[in-house]
Amino acid sequence: MNRVLVSGGCGFLGSHLVDSLLLRADVERVVVIDNLWTGALANLAHVSDSRLFIEICDVERFATADRFDEVIHMASPASPPWYMREPLRVIRANVEGALNLLNLLRPGGRFCFTSTSEVYGDPLVSPQPESYRGSVDCTGPRSSYDESKRCTEALLFESQRVSGLDIRVVRLFNAYGPRTRADDGRAVSNFISQALTSRMLTVHGDGLQTRSWGYVDDIIEALARFFWRDACEYRGPLNVGNNREVSVLDVATHITKLLPGTRIKFMPPVPQDPTNRRPDLTIMKRVLPGWTADVPYEEGVRRTLDWFRLQMAARESAIRYEEDRRMAV
Amino acid sequence: MNRVLVSGGCGFLGSHLVDSLLLRADVERVVVIDNLWTGALANLAHVSDSRLFIEICDVERFATADRFDEVIHMASPASPPWYMREPLRVIRANVEGALNLLNLLRPGGRFCFTSTSEVYGDPLVSPQPESYRGSVDCTGPRSSYDESKRCTEALLFESQRVSGLDIRVVRLFNAYGPRTRADDGRAVSNFISQALTSRMLTVHGDGLQTRSWGYVDDIIEALARFFWRDACEYRGPLNVGNNREVSVLDVATHITKLLPGTRIKFMPPVPQDPTNRRPDLTIMKRVLPGWTADVPYEEGVRRTLDWFRLQMAARESAIRYEEDRRMAV
Repeated sequence: MNRVLVSGGCGFLGSHLVDSLLLRADVERVVVIDNLWTGALANLAHVSDSRLFIEICDVERFATADRFDEVIHMASPASPPWYMREPLRVIRANVEGALNLLNLLRPGGRFCFTSTSEVYGDPLVSPQPESYRGSVDCTGPRSSYDESKRCTEALLFESQRVSGLDIRVVRLFNAYGPRTRADDGRAVSNFISQALTSRMLTVHGDGLQTRSWGYVDDIIEALARFFWRDACEYRGPLNVGNNREVSVLDVATHITKLLPGTRIKFMPPVPQDPTNRRPDLTIMKRVLPGWTADVPYEEGVRRTLDWFRLQMAARESAIRYEEDRRMAV
Repeated sequence: MNRVLVSGGCGFLGSHLVDSLLLRADVERVVVIDNLWTGALANLAHVSDSRLFIEICDVERFATADRFDEVIHMASPASPPWYMREPLRVIRANVEGALNLLNLLRPGGRFCFTSTSEVYGDPLVSPQPESYRGSVDCTGPRSSYDESKRCTEALLFESQRVSGLDIRVVRLFNAYGPRTRADDGRAVSNFISQALTSRMLTVHGDGLQTRSWGYVDDIIEALARFFWRDACEYRGPLNVGNNREVSVLDVATHITKLLPGTRIKFMPPVPQDPTNRRPDLTIMKRVLPGWTADVPYEEGVRRTLDWFRLQMAARESAIRYEEDRRMAV
């Protein structure tokens, strides 16, 4: 029976991975560490499984006498407006977080890390294979995220080299889906939440920058298969994403068609916004045969839109309930 | 009057910078933090200045109620065999060290950092301008050093962006000279110490990989001019080095000529050893007009050789003294 620690387990991807973990019969206990910076307890509010424990704490400060068979380090904001506001906190969460969590792993345990396609920066080759060394400005406004992910990869691969640490490292390309924050700030969730409120979608730059939009269910399926597998010759870095490259403007246009009456407004480009992003999935095909990111963005966007609508309706109903109660008093 | 903290101040470059600091009349106190991992008290044994205080401590753990006007963060091994042995410790010294030292800076104080040409990895452009984003394998055997330097740069430039921190960041190209450890492992000191002991110089690979050898006095002169200057529009990253590109084999050959009877032996290449390294000094010329690295390697090697000879003679004499004393007892 395994004890598993998930840092960032109340976040968008983290909470989906916790759901997946709780489906495993060999898991005795799941401890989530989250400081609720970008995560939310609401993301795990549906869980009624006595194996789940949540500790509200910074990952770099978390202390316990427990030792874990598996540590999954996901704690970090992943959206530029969030990480650009508090860059040092991002570095602490990733790098100091990893150093701290290493101490909580039992000898022989496994350390899984969600790195990012941002390690490739604004890539000069497309699609990006894992061997591509990237084009990151380590003094730029996105560097706290990009470089702390790169440094944490270094820390883990070097631990593997010098002490045989069992690691799994994935590089996640743009993921989206239910449980993204309405104020997350990344394209898909931003467009949907704008379409449902101000009805004005803001596209930065000309919108021709491309991304590879991976729907959350597909992404989590890949993580589960890679992280839970014992016999694993290749331990990373592994690109995880949808390799259908779509422009930001195409996604925005698609959403305006789903919601008549919404419009697109162009805004100045975001500093050092990558011009393109597409995973080379050659290694993935070998390591996880049969896995594909097969939810097309048209379908993923529809599901995400439905989820956002329900969330907004629930929030409005809660506000009305509180107002009615106050009136009644 | 200024209080200055120097982490790694007992190291090769650190101790030379401390000498330079103690020439400043406006310095009230110099606190050196060094865990003597690669540094040595011997490097500061010549100092008899009551303004110098040495604390033997890991930089990431150092605590004090004092606050400093200037922090100079140099703590880190810089030689591949040293940093490849204890990669996590390297990351802690650089990244956690910087985070810790930021807390010891008085508001409005200045944070200086010695980064490295290794942020360029195995460069695909030559010479390397500061704008070059580098070619570093963040999963490779040199990554603890390269990536922790990159991440610390990110940490400082982002602190400058979000909170106006006054920073000075240099990228040092290969430096050499007196006070390098005999077992440092980098080319010049290695060749000299081998020439004086086994008389067999080991060149890794074909020796055609190039470096830009900067003699310590030139390098320290650049640091002092850049770090102590108040009115400074450009705060880094600033390449510091000699832009005369010389192959490793040329240096080895030069030393065999200085010491007849020594020979060169070829060994397998070091993993991911950069093929070339040469600073673009365009920004340097603008920021520090008049500065040049003008000690040619032939002269620098001679001075370093003299220093190593004296060190060895002194060590032998000390051993003889101890032996004589034991015999006399």
